[in-house]
Amino acid sequence: MTTESLLRNHWYAAARIEEVTADAPFARTMLDEPIVLFRSKDGSIAALQDRCPHRKAPLSMGRMVDGEIQCNYHGAKFGGDGVCSLIPSQEGKLISGFAARPYPVTEAHGMIFVWIGEAEKADLDLVPDMGAYGPNAGTGVVGGYMYIKANYLLLVDNLLDLTHIAYLHESTLGATGAEALLAGEMEFEVTGDNIRTVRIVRDQVQTFFAKKTGKFEGQGNLDRFTITNFWAPSYLELQLCNAPSSEHMPKCDVPHHRVHHCITPESDGAVHYYWTMAWYHRPDDADLAKEFHTVTKLAFDEDLPMLEAQQRNIESDPEQSPLVNFEGDKAGVAARKIVTKLLAGENARAAE
Amino acid sequence: MTTESLLRNHWYAAARIEEVTADAPFARTMLDEPIVLFRSKDGSIAALQDRCPHRKAPLSMGRMVDGEIQCNYHGAKFGGDGVCSLIPSQEGKLISGFAARPYPVTEAHGMIFVWIGEAEKADLDLVPDMGAYGPNAGTGVVGGYMYIKANYLLLVDNLLDLTHIAYLHESTLGATGAEALLAGEMEFEVTGDNIRTVRIVRDQVQTFFAKKTGKFEGQGNLDRFTITNFWAPSYLELQLCNAPSSEHMPKCDVPHHRVHHCITPESDGAVHYYWTMAWYHRPDDADLAKEFHTVTKLAFDEDLPMLEAQQRNIESDPEQSPLVNFEGDKAGVAARKIVTKLLAGENARAAE
Amino acid sequence: MTTESLLRNHWYAAARIEEVTADAPFARTMLDEPIVLFRSKDGSIAALQDRCPHRKAPLSMGRMVDGEIQCNYHGAKFGGDGVCSLIPSQEGKLISGFAARPYPVTEAHGMIFVWIGEAEKADLDLVPDMGAYGPNAGTGVVGGYMYIKANYLLLVDNLLDLTHIAYLHESTLGATGAEALLAGEMEFEVTGDNIRTVRIVRDQVQTFFAKKTGKFEGQGNLDRFTITNFWAPSYLELQLCNAPSSEHMPKCDVPHHRVHHCITPESDGAVHYYWTMAWYHRPDDADLAKEFHTVTKLAFDEDLPMLEAQQRNIESDPEQSPLVNFEGDKAGVAARKIVTKLLAGENARAAE
Repeated sequence: MTTESLLRNHWYAAARIEEVTADAPFARTMLDEPIVLFRSKDGSIAALQDRCPHRKAPLSMGRMVDGEIQCNYHGAKFGGDGVCSLIPSQEGKLISGFAARPYPVTEAHGMIFVWIGEAEKADLDLVPDMGAYGPNAGTGVVGGYMYIKANYLLLVDNLLDLTHIAYLHESTLGATGAEALLAGEMEFEVTGDNIRTVRIVRDQVQTFFAKKTGKFEGQGNLDRFTITNFWAPSYLELQLCNAPSSEHMPKCDVPHHRVHHCITPESDGAVHYYWTMAWYHRPDDADLAKEFHTVTKLAFDEDLPMLEAQQRNIESDPEQSPLVNFEGDKAGVAARKIVTKLLAGENARAAE
Repeated sequence: MTTESLLRNHWYAAARIEEVTADAPFARTMLDEPIVLFRSKDGSIAALQDRCPHRKAPLSMGRMVDGEIQCNYHGAKFGGDGVCSLIPSQEGKLISGFAARPYPVTEAHGMIFVWIGEAEKADLDLVPDMGAYGPNAGTGVVGGYMYIKANYLLLVDNLLDLTHIAYLHESTLGATGAEALLAGEMEFEVTGDNIRTVRIVRDQVQTFFAKKTGKFEGQGNLDRFTITNFWAPSYLELQLCNAPSSEHMPKCDVPHHRVHHCITPESDGAVHYYWTMAWYHRPDDADLAKEFHTVTKLAFDEDLPMLEAQQRNIESDPEQSPLVNFEGDKAGVAARKIVTKLLAGENARAAE
Repeated sequence: MTTESLLRNHWYAAARIEEVTADAPFARTMLDEPIVLFRSKDGSIAALQDRCPHRKAPLSMGRMVDGEIQCNYHGAKFGGDGVCSLIPSQEGKLISGFAARPYPVTEAHGMIFVWIGEAEKADLDLVPDMGAYGPNAGTGVVGGYMYIKANYLLLVDNLLDLTHIAYLHESTLGATGAEALLAGEMEFEVTGDNIRTVRIVRDQVQTFFAKKTGKFEGQGNLDRFTITNFWAPSYLELQLCNAPSSEHMPKCDVPHHRVHHCITPESDGAVHYYWTMAWYHRPDDADLAKEFHTVTKLAFDEDLPMLEAQQRNIESDPEQSPLVNFEGDKAGVAARKIVTKLLAGENARAAE
């Protein structure tokens, strides 16, 4: 995607809650907009444009004073709502309307979400549900952050077509063999801006994560349901359901483990990527947590150079020849269609 | 400033005199123009375009031969006036009109100044007066050079509004407390292309430099006059005058110390910055000189990341929202007005 | 050259034969086109566009499997002709017309040549003749590769005007003195897209290479014929012929040594540069080979910063002032004329 592919009227993950404190500002560029996050006086999270309206200094180079952010250049102070509360050199005299632009922001499920587009459209009901990863979900949880210089739709493609595990992740997630990864048909259904795919594979060797928790120790081959949900513009969740093949698993109740993906475009050509993984068997096993974090990070580190190489190859193609789709791309193609539809809607509104 | 803000018909500091010798050429890009400086046969400084007119090799990669500069690619030699005196492969045959473009250049007050614009307008009376920093001024002198990736007007703003010392330089120049730095009204007057501001602060603790020279040892609080002069396009001088508060200093005769600033745009987005500081009490104290150099450099190193962050923040702002001015910006605003007026004049002439 | 100077309907050197194997793909960007090279099933060299037509992954990040290249993202396999032979996730189902773009490619004289332009014009008779450097030529041979961020015509200029050796290579190739390098007239003739120049210098000290082989040991001064051939767009060969001055060498039969240059534009602003040197006296002397490689590399490493500085100086010149030519530039000027003529031809065809 070399033309602008960014949707603005959505919540995007800006940070994990523990990254933003009352002690120091946190900077994050999203959709080309520099944002500074901090915990303000009343305990809520604030998100302001990271350009002091006085002389355009980044507020994130500033300091926290009594729950307000103070610009480190000339000392202007701003509350969580962006309104300036002090101009030190003017002996208490303020300037009417002088404020840093605030953005709608909310915390949920351990993450902080910011709304970059039209503030009046920011609907808390649209915040993605990551309840399954919360502190009271009874799961083990690990997670990570990556910065990837690629358009977010390349990452959506990647996560909606897991057949790549057999090749790109041959030595990590795919080490248990290509057969199980490529077997089975993928079913999918589109409901509004959500896509749900299911791949059912029966009677295959236990994959890495299933073996590691030990839940199916001594039970031989497993059936596996891989359920993937995509919500526009760029949230995904994988649920991996396993059962001994003898049980002929009819549907997925509680998954063996699940992985949530928040993909936040920094720009048309780069993303902030937060992943979170939860599992149900031996949730308190610290060694298991460490191992799950390590192997997942290893695998995603294999994705990174591929995604960035795709991006460079697409950007440098003067012909901008279209992508060709395999059967496994059905879900990715559907996701791009949803994004295209939403983009048309935003552009139509912008043109009004 | 993302649009072109550069004034051409002015003298700009290219180097300190000791940087340019008869032994090796010195390269300096000014106003997007690559310049090579050297001391030529008759002892005067020469400034030529740093592109050999033959095959565009930088002459600054060449060598000095008998006060002429010889291109290191095919050996063409040029005098200080830019005229070619030798083409080795042509056995003495020269080419009529074959010359490197020369620029008006002059040395004064320990600096070398180059005129990039229309040569016939280069008036030596317009060279900034830095006599107070010369070898016979009876002062101690230290100085430095910095390369800053920011538009020159951001540095002009910085130096014309010293209230930033209370915040950005809190641990260095501002360590004696914000109160004295923010107190007092600033008066200013504009005369032609010069701005003069005076801030008078009475009965405050001794600031860093006043304490260090020991001139006012045991004399308690001081009055302080801070006089700043700006000359278009980008020269500034600060004079700091102190006296014991008991004396009710009526005006500034000889300052306690003074700092001169030569700001030379490399391009619209970067500057070469030469600062020079002189003081009158204990001028020969080498330890004091070392300390003054160190603390001034420390402080200016605090300015650098802020100025570069402003520049990035301004360049990346698609809305190019205007700056908002505090009262302390009066002088900076006046300076920008003068620059805008001069730019209009240069552009009108260019359009003739 | 800041405007596009690239000719497409020509063979360009992509690699030395030993760089391309059946074990791993080899990536090379030529004329802005990413290419992957490998030795395919039938033993021939294949050149494909280095963008998997599925999701634009570089095939060069893939692996060789049975003489075919397999994309490392989703496992698509392509033969040497670019046709896809396997899409693993589709259980044997292929897609009609799904192929990576193939390029005409041939191996000759130890090099691999690729034709980027119209495939139907790729004529093997146009492959440059480097037979004198082949394994059966009875010569010693050394060679090297350099990546230079400069337009290819700057390198053509460089090799067609060897007077620069006296200055740029003063401490290496030119160490035997400027006199012999600058002496003599250069004759040249243009035949179609070929330029041949001859410089005859008589009764001069032995140059580096002549001394090193020892062929003329104890024979004093030498006559030297330097014959340079240029073939559009960017092949050159130097033949250096020596004989004792007493023999009054009438013409060059077998040269003392010769150097071939393949200059392949990566883009308008960078080249891949392959040089190959052959000599006839003591061809099997390994120490001599090492020494020749070392000194030639040293000299070409002196060219690199100069060529890149020229390129930067030309790109940054808003006036794009024309080059001025010395007498020694006659051949370079003729080469640029040929290129300009060929460009006009290609552009006329493209506009049809």
